[in-house]
Amino acid sequence: MTALPDMIHNLITKDEQSLAARIFDDIAKMSPDSAGVSRPAYSAKETEVLCYLEDLGISEGLSVTYDAGQNAVFSLPEDAAAEKFVLVGSHVDSVPMGGNYDGLAGVAAGLICLIRARRSGQSFARPVKVIAMRGEESAWFGPCYIASKALMGSLGKAEWGSLHKDDGRTLQAHMDTIGVDMERVCKGIPLLEADRVLEYIELHIEQGPLLIGKNMSMAIISGIRGNFRHKKIRCIGEAGHSGAVPRAYRKDPVLAMADLLTRLDESWLTILQKGGDMVMTSGIVATDPEKNAMTRIPDEVSFSLDIRSQDAGVLENMRVLLREEIDQVARERRVRFELASENATAPALMDTRVVKGLTGAMERLGLEPFVMASGGGHDAAVFANAGVPTAMVFVRNQNGSHNPDEAMEIDDFLVATSVIYEHLTDLPL
Amino acid sequence: MTALPDMIHNLITKDEQSLAARIFDDIAKMSPDSAGVSRPAYSAKETEVLCYLEDLGISEGLSVTYDAGQNAVFSLPEDAAAEKFVLVGSHVDSVPMGGNYDGLAGVAAGLICLIRARRSGQSFARPVKVIAMRGEESAWFGPCYIASKALMGSLGKAEWGSLHKDDGRTLQAHMDTIGVDMERVCKGIPLLEADRVLEYIELHIEQGPLLIGKNMSMAIISGIRGNFRHKKIRCIGEAGHSGAVPRAYRKDPVLAMADLLTRLDESWLTILQKGGDMVMTSGIVATDPEKNAMTRIPDEVSFSLDIRSQDAGVLENMRVLLREEIDQVARERRVRFELASENATAPALMDTRVVKGLTGAMERLGLEPFVMASGGGHDAAVFANAGVPTAMVFVRNQNGSHNPDEAMEIDDFLVATSVIYEHLTDLPL
Repeated sequence: MTALPDMIHNLITKDEQSLAARIFDDIAKMSPDSAGVSRPAYSAKETEVLCYLEDLGISEGLSVTYDAGQNAVFSLPEDAAAEKFVLVGSHVDSVPMGGNYDGLAGVAAGLICLIRARRSGQSFARPVKVIAMRGEESAWFGPCYIASKALMGSLGKAEWGSLHKDDGRTLQAHMDTIGVDMERVCKGIPLLEADRVLEYIELHIEQGPLLIGKNMSMAIISGIRGNFRHKKIRCIGEAGHSGAVPRAYRKDPVLAMADLLTRLDESWLTILQKGGDMVMTSGIVATDPEKNAMTRIPDEVSFSLDIRSQDAGVLENMRVLLREEIDQVARERRVRFELASENATAPALMDTRVVKGLTGAMERLGLEPFVMASGGGHDAAVFANAGVPTAMVFVRNQNGSHNPDEAMEIDDFLVATSVIYEHLTDLPL
Repeated sequence: MTALPDMIHNLITKDEQSLAARIFDDIAKMSPDSAGVSRPAYSAKETEVLCYLEDLGISEGLSVTYDAGQNAVFSLPEDAAAEKFVLVGSHVDSVPMGGNYDGLAGVAAGLICLIRARRSGQSFARPVKVIAMRGEESAWFGPCYIASKALMGSLGKAEWGSLHKDDGRTLQAHMDTIGVDMERVCKGIPLLEADRVLEYIELHIEQGPLLIGKNMSMAIISGIRGNFRHKKIRCIGEAGHSGAVPRAYRKDPVLAMADLLTRLDESWLTILQKGGDMVMTSGIVATDPEKNAMTRIPDEVSFSLDIRSQDAGVLENMRVLLREEIDQVARERRVRFELASENATAPALMDTRVVKGLTGAMERLGLEPFVMASGGGHDAAVFANAGVPTAMVFVRNQNGSHNPDEAMEIDDFLVATSVIYEHLTDLPL
């Protein structure tokens, strides 16, 4: 743990340390898997977690209700009827054998803000509601950000019609069973009017190593990277004897793939050097195990490609560049590339005013403001794209997310929670 | 089929076309597999093929004997007792589901030379023996060039101790059953003294596309490429979220592999531009299918590497370069490479005098002499490395070798056979 400025230390109380630890421990114990935790989207297990949080909220004197999406909504009693409010929260579901903090930390942060205000008798500058949302993870049905899309009226038919990975029932049926107002969801009618939400703020563990590398507890997010992806790019050449085919006669798909990836990697570096935001990954690479051999020029290799940026312009430039480089490599090396249809998600820019509010809160608490991009997608992107002024707070975390080794330290979490609290109690700009 | 010079056309008779077609057809019919042919090394099927050739030789008035390696040896009756002789031949075994021409074509070429001389009453400039050797393919026991190594006294214990892929009996047991003099083989005593062989000449189908590309029937071989190989090079990096880990924090093994292969490819091109001989292949590439995902930076990728040259100096330079490039890529990209132990075979240079004799024969027959390297290994390498003046003749062939689609045209085969015949009947230089 980094040495924190004294001001922050004063904000971390033993009481809140135990409260946060208790919330995380109790919920982890409720949702064990063979490794890590499992909290399936729109499951009875998820409902059980919301009931636990409801009990906690009531015991702390908070108002607790369920919205039309069957998400739990918490507030100070005086804010329960507010027409417009700042919304803080995240999701409580997890991937199978996942970590305990992805999603849950954002809900816990909101609750601790409410509890801190309630216990201390402080009030917020504007009404605050905290939301514990249901299904966000794509692991169960395929689509992601289910609860937030249902709230904003953007859950499409392809999404609610998708099937559960285990029981084969539709997402619609699962949501209906839980009590979600599926008539409105299926018609695309928002369960929550976007203009009622003054700001949406979501705390999340960082899924990369940047904050560890920089030795910082937390950061404010400037945007959520969009992406375009090809699950499988086939590079097709011509098989041949590894010893008997001279270079000029080869159509070697592996060297063609290496050439293409190296060209893209060089462009990536150039974009970063110019200050652009981008990441690029080829996570799956394979020649055909049925046919490949050390002494055979393979006829084909396939590979995936995932390119992300918070800047739509960078994505578009890379999309064009990919086609250009593919054409050139194909021509020079006499191979052919076949691209499965592209999947793309638009980047979501965070609201500069909310980002400024949160970095201002960091400064007031003696922290050096640090702003970074989010690589993974989050419910925040849905709110942002629905027009809600949105921002995110990342907490330092070891070992990425979606695995049992997620390792967020409670003190880092409380620092980030205090920044949100500071922002909520500050007057709006 | 290319238009051939008239002189060559005069040398291709309908009789020899039918004779060659009959030999190939009869033997293919004797050794069918579910696809192509199978003639296991040191099997009863192989013996059956030798008996067929023995009968053919006898019916054409040739002398036929079996040597101590149980290979069939043919000659004109007047050359049967020759102390020293030019040896022409190849092997009769095949890989499983192999093609009919790999090996057999070299034996048939020698026999047709003998039959042409016998039928026409011509004599050779020096005594000529034709050898139909047994096991050459590594597909059955692991080691290759078995019969020629046994002849030259270089079949080692690791080789004769190796086990048959199907029945698990040792190569030694199989050779013993066939009647090979295993006492001498196991002691490393040559079954044929190298200095009795004035020249060794082997015709073989080309296993690459060069002669098809150049529209030539045949070529003389300048050398058999040696190689060094790594069956599996592991490049080990660090797994991470494809969207959340910035470039500077990545240890991406796929981009590191692409970088390494691209560097080696550039060096390959430079070597060729300087007139050097080399081929390079990465035939097997794979991330771990258990763990890889489009949205995960893989922790590891593995790939094979097979680098060949007929020049031992080029191989040594590439060996050093590989280590240097690996060190540099590992340092720059913070990954680690693990190389399984290297397998290496030394190149075998053909004898310039014999090569000159054969290119001279091409010229006298009106063919433009063309000399190239052999990418695959052959029995000829064993004779050459035992000090026998050796050369090879390649015949144009579609679709490579070791597969049922080998496609040599009989006329190309007879052109190449005629070149050998012209050399055999010419006075030695």
